Amino acid sequence: MENTIQVPVHDLRACCASALSLMGVPEEHVQMTLQVLITAELQGLGTHGTRRLIPYILRMRDGLINPRPSLRIEKKAPAASLVEGDNGLGPVVAMAGLNEALELSGNTGVAFVGCRNSNHFGPAAPYALEACRREMIVILGTNGFPTMTAWGGRESMLGINPIAIGVPRRDAPPFILDMSMSMSSRGRIRKAAENGQEIPAGWALNPEGHPTTDPVEALKGFVCPIGGHKGYGLALAVDLIAGVLTGSAFGTDVLSLFQQWEKPQRIGHFFICIDPSRLMDLDRFYERVDSLLDAVKSSAPLDPLKPVLIPGEPEAESYGRLKETGIPLKRDIWEALQDLSRGIYTAEVPKM
Amino acid sequence: MENTIQVPVHDLRACCASALSLMGVPEEHVQMTLQVLITAELQGLGTHGTRRLIPYILRMRDGLINPRPSLRIEKKAPAASLVEGDNGLGPVVAMAGLNEALELSGNTGVAFVGCRNSNHFGPAAPYALEACRREMIVILGTNGFPTMTAWGGRESMLGINPIAIGVPRRDAPPFILDMSMSMSSRGRIRKAAENGQEIPAGWALNPEGHPTTDPVEALKGFVCPIGGHKGYGLALAVDLIAGVLTGSAFGTDVLSLFQQWEKPQRIGHFFICIDPSRLMDLDRFYERVDSLLDAVKSSAPLDPLKPVLIPGEPEAESYGRLKETGIPLKRDIWEALQDLSRGIYTAEVPKM
Repeated sequence: MENTIQVPVHDLRACCASALSLMGVPEEHVQMTLQVLITAELQGLGTHGTRRLIPYILRMRDGLINPRPSLRIEKKAPAASLVEGDNGLGPVVAMAGLNEALELSGNTGVAFVGCRNSNHFGPAAPYALEACRREMIVILGTNGFPTMTAWGGRESMLGINPIAIGVPRRDAPPFILDMSMSMSSRGRIRKAAENGQEIPAGWALNPEGHPTTDPVEALKGFVCPIGGHKGYGLALAVDLIAGVLTGSAFGTDVLSLFQQWEKPQRIGHFFICIDPSRLMDLDRFYERVDSLLDAVKSSAPLDPLKPVLIPGEPEAESYGRLKETGIPLKRDIWEALQDLSRGIYTAEVPKM
Repeated sequence: MENTIQVPVHDLRACCASALSLMGVPEEHVQMTLQVLITAELQGLGTHGTRRLIPYILRMRDGLINPRPSLRIEKKAPAASLVEGDNGLGPVVAMAGLNEALELSGNTGVAFVGCRNSNHFGPAAPYALEACRREMIVILGTNGFPTMTAWGGRESMLGINPIAIGVPRRDAPPFILDMSMSMSSRGRIRKAAENGQEIPAGWALNPEGHPTTDPVEALKGFVCPIGGHKGYGLALAVDLIAGVLTGSAFGTDVLSLFQQWEKPQRIGHFFICIDPSRLMDLDRFYERVDSLLDAVKSSAPLDPLKPVLIPGEPEAESYGRLKETGIPLKRDIWEALQDLSRGIYTAEVPKM
């Protein structure tokens, strides 16, 4: 991959920090944003990592994201708050929501925090990792730009509305499930199109709503939910909680980070944190988590060369490795980020 | 279907109540159990309805379920409790957990309640319906007997660990998503086997862990998770919260309601309730829910004769209809239930 270079973590961080500071983002918010995006890169989730800074920054320049939001935490009940995001950067609003949920749940055992008027928040896994580092269980989700039909429908109605579930461990990487409700991302379908390959049956529908294995048709059409009506139902449930309940946009009112340049996205997120230490002696909890996950991990694999993986293991492996080697970035992305850090705003917004 | 008869709701309820009372189940617990199982029948979820009473009662007779449990609610934090189920009937323990979660969340905005040392609790939808009737949002789940492998594995490690998500509505049936983490139930695979039909690709693995469309092989093997690694991760997450965190059995220690007759099941459940009225004016909340769900409902269908469905609609339609017509029951199930109500315990345990 000659178009990919290894960028030391420190350099990438410094470059992104400069780009954000130039936009007038306060230092504390710069750190919140980088905690999410650099962690994403280290976890091997680069498709949702620092490359997303390009549209974030171009949207700030064009007045579509507020670089200096007045975040307001509204205490609604002893265990429930809402965060008014004031159209701030998604990772800033979301980290504020997660921090509030972590703090509340330490007092009440469980907490719900919803964020409204936010923007694309990156991948979900970095938030789950932060909760696990603080020895909390988390269930979190966000709505997003619609690319799925209703089950049995042929119009774009719902985002792929990802969730993450994190469960901390003491002597092993945390359990982190980070998943969207679709069979595949548009990124993977785009890669198949670029390589002239078919996509598996069940991944996508053409613009008329019929199944297709042609990635070009798929990109004009829709992605399919996991488990048919089940993934459709889950995507709706996430939108009801992340969008409807928080006071954010929902359904077809959620705008695209990439394509729609008229108005803010008005995305919503939610965080449910549970403090396991309030329910059970923490040592015993960790023993029991290990007991389940070690048994599953050591169950017989179908292919002897491919041991069973626990959700979060690949991310942890990547994290340890990339911290040493640096982050693999496409050369054009790295150059675009460097331009942004110097106040040059000619970068093209990458395709979704 | 000459083997199916329509049983008036009142008759079915009276028959099941007698069968439970004969076992020494206290009247309050009889009502809790019937609320779940009769509601399940009305919702059209008969596979998880009163027919499950047969193994429940035979297990009580054999000392494997405790007909008179001392339920103990352990207040762990302002918004979090655990219910010690004392090996009681699943619907009794679970309804106690749900009621505790509904009560707590009215005070704190959100609540988490875990139930331990419980048994099979029926389908998840009746609990979601009860929460919605009380104008609460609910996320609930249970672990169960392992019938799925780890993703990439070839040993039974995990249950299909169903969840339900309920969101109340005012002038329309509530949103109720009730789903397991598998592509299909064993019941549907068994029906295909009985009819000599193939099952769709992606539903099941043979005993060696390879994909199969032969339902006989599938019944000896494993069911497949929705979305591959995603459904596997969700099933694990549910077991971590419902089993590990509550102090119940988990993984391969969860026993089958039907096949294992040596020890109690020690199943765990969880309930997370959120009070929308604490987060938003309730009128506005209901308007926003309608706005999303009405838009999705009225989106263009692929087949003009099959309008898009919202999760919970089929159950609500069934409920209204069966309340009038009575419950369709297989004749042998109805006869078995009548025998049980007269103290005759010769019924065979139905196959899972």
